[in-house]
Amino acid sequence: MFEINENYLQLNESYLFSTIARRVEIFSAAHPEADVIRLGIGDVTLPLPPSVISAMHSAVDEMADKATFRGYGPEQGYSFLRDKIAEIDFRQRGVKISPDEIFVGDGSKSDTGNIGDILGEDNVVAITDPVYPVYLDTNIMRLGKSSKIVMLSCGEENGFLPEIPSQRMDVIYLCYPNNPTGTVMNRQQLKQWVDYALRNKSLILFDAAYEAFIRDEEIPRTIYEIEGATTCAIEFRSFSKNAGFTGLRCSYTVVPKTLITESVNGKEISINALWNRRQSTKFNGTPYIVQKAAEAVYSPGGQHEVGEMVAYYMRNAEIIRKGLAEKGWTIFGGENSPYIWLKCPNGMDSWTFFDRLLEECHIVGTPGIGFGTQGEGYFRLTAFNSYERTAEAVKRIKEWE
Amino acid sequence: MFEINENYLQLNESYLFSTIARRVEIFSAAHPEADVIRLGIGDVTLPLPPSVISAMHSAVDEMADKATFRGYGPEQGYSFLRDKIAEIDFRQRGVKISPDEIFVGDGSKSDTGNIGDILGEDNVVAITDPVYPVYLDTNIMRLGKSSKIVMLSCGEENGFLPEIPSQRMDVIYLCYPNNPTGTVMNRQQLKQWVDYALRNKSLILFDAAYEAFIRDEEIPRTIYEIEGATTCAIEFRSFSKNAGFTGLRCSYTVVPKTLITESVNGKEISINALWNRRQSTKFNGTPYIVQKAAEAVYSPGGQHEVGEMVAYYMRNAEIIRKGLAEKGWTIFGGENSPYIWLKCPNGMDSWTFFDRLLEECHIVGTPGIGFGTQGEGYFRLTAFNSYERTAEAVKRIKEWE
Repeated sequence: MFEINENYLQLNESYLFSTIARRVEIFSAAHPEADVIRLGIGDVTLPLPPSVISAMHSAVDEMADKATFRGYGPEQGYSFLRDKIAEIDFRQRGVKISPDEIFVGDGSKSDTGNIGDILGEDNVVAITDPVYPVYLDTNIMRLGKSSKIVMLSCGEENGFLPEIPSQRMDVIYLCYPNNPTGTVMNRQQLKQWVDYALRNKSLILFDAAYEAFIRDEEIPRTIYEIEGATTCAIEFRSFSKNAGFTGLRCSYTVVPKTLITESVNGKEISINALWNRRQSTKFNGTPYIVQKAAEAVYSPGGQHEVGEMVAYYMRNAEIIRKGLAEKGWTIFGGENSPYIWLKCPNGMDSWTFFDRLLEECHIVGTPGIGFGTQGEGYFRLTAFNSYERTAEAVKRIKEWE
Repeated sequence: MFEINENYLQLNESYLFSTIARRVEIFSAAHPEADVIRLGIGDVTLPLPPSVISAMHSAVDEMADKATFRGYGPEQGYSFLRDKIAEIDFRQRGVKISPDEIFVGDGSKSDTGNIGDILGEDNVVAITDPVYPVYLDTNIMRLGKSSKIVMLSCGEENGFLPEIPSQRMDVIYLCYPNNPTGTVMNRQQLKQWVDYALRNKSLILFDAAYEAFIRDEEIPRTIYEIEGATTCAIEFRSFSKNAGFTGLRCSYTVVPKTLITESVNGKEISINALWNRRQSTKFNGTPYIVQKAAEAVYSPGGQHEVGEMVAYYMRNAEIIRKGLAEKGWTIFGGENSPYIWLKCPNGMDSWTFFDRLLEECHIVGTPGIGFGTQGEGYFRLTAFNSYERTAEAVKRIKEWE
């Protein structure tokens, strides 16, 4: 009888967002008149901007003509896109990343999930708690529920930021601006992690999917603003949240050529070469039309349009923050992030608060416990609904007894 | 110091097609006047058909409007596509596969590469030789160059089909119509493998990426035409070759709900549930516009158009087959497949023949040795160039001394 990867049996059966969907479904069936507002899942609601739409129509037309049709593209992504990324996301911010250090992918979920393919099984892996479930689940898939997976507790007492560990961690997942807490690390805080990684020869996996929401100049937009990071960090970026690509699927991963480790027998290993081998073998590139869409994000018109989209969502974040603060609730995030993390009032646990918010205000959010044990007693709201619906939700909460 | 997956160090450094590209580049630089015809890599050349183009323009317009915009889709694929696949690719051929047994992906390279994620490391894995390199490389990535990877020799003496092994194999990769040899298995031959798998409780990973090229009614179009296959086989399908989606990226994987194994402690395990967990955690779905493009393939117009595309390529295959046969060369495949596998004349080895064909006829093909040791002395040509270029290539070969 053929065998399965038994680590999968150690995963939690039910996935957070399907549990939420089921509870909402049951509620809506019992209360068909209820006007439910969804501030739960982190999906965008604004349509794709005009520059992106126009670029896609042109790309589709290219695919219709033998002379301009594109078949297999480079697994790493087309130069037209990698060049733009290197120039606008990095060089213009004073950071030197070359196009061949950039790997275009089909989403940060795939990229952060697949990165484990190239890592050894003896690494001690540090993951924050609360956390985006993909980091944890994909490590359980690789390693089982192992003592090699260490959770870094992020509680209210330290502003939901992890403390530098006293022992050595080989691989550290960091996501800032954070999902789910909406918290950020300033330059000094991130530098402590880079210094830790350099000292311990650790690898930082830095998820910067929400960098477009940073407003504060003190917050680094990329980990490579920190000296030494190109020798210890991989950065993940996404077009999902800044440009509305959740249904279009495009991301990129930066693997600097200066990121080197050693094999067990002391041979120098380029992580860039390793990831390139993984992508060339198990991936066949992001669709041409999607890469043309991503390229359009970097045009002057595209930059203006995505700037407006982000500003729209950040206005939502602001009215949520203000409303909840006026209500007297304790809140985190929402200033450089589309996520607002709140402490459930009156000592309620996450799921009780979820149920009461749904039943009494007809609002869907995400229970903090769904992101880890340290999330118990907290709750995530997102800024991705429309302004009108967000304002209505805040009004309901403010009038709630 | 963090550790890597050391299995990667056991992979061959250079990838077949990049080696070929380099040799062609060197030749072309030295002979800028040479009109090189490429019958090497298996990429299509015809543009996307009108139904697909039209569906994509509509889908792009939907993404521009708040009312019809689509964000995150189901990781398994949209129902509109899974329903069509179940109906047209299976039910209309008398095979019962339900939509929730179908997982839409971004390409068979990803799907066949990622399937190993859910398999245990103690399985004995059988892979044919010669073979599409992805099966072998992804297993080396997981297991290293292990004795658990067994190569099934496919030589000229058995028509390049593997013999049923005498010992037990847990997992068996089969690809028919075959890449690279262009050979096929008839119903009786495939039944022997299904029976073997049922007897040994093995898993067959059946790559049917080239099923659209089957002309002969005796050749099964899906492994599920064979009784019992839904309890022992996963099938991989692609839109790349039948509909020209190599640059668009869409595929699907069939994991029947009746495909069950046991965990080490005797618990029944649904492979469908396991793959669903893998895809939900490490993948975020194929782009909506690409799934709408794939749906259009199943419209009456789309079916007619892709039928014509396949017929166009099969005309190329026929002129290659006929031309080489008239030349007196020994050939395989090309009748139910876009690949022609030829025995290098005069006992030449694969790379010698590659060089001579390039230098003397200015034609690029793929050396059989690149697909495994049993490919030495053989050579692959593809039918994916234009009719005119293919005819010119055949003419050059026929006039070759």
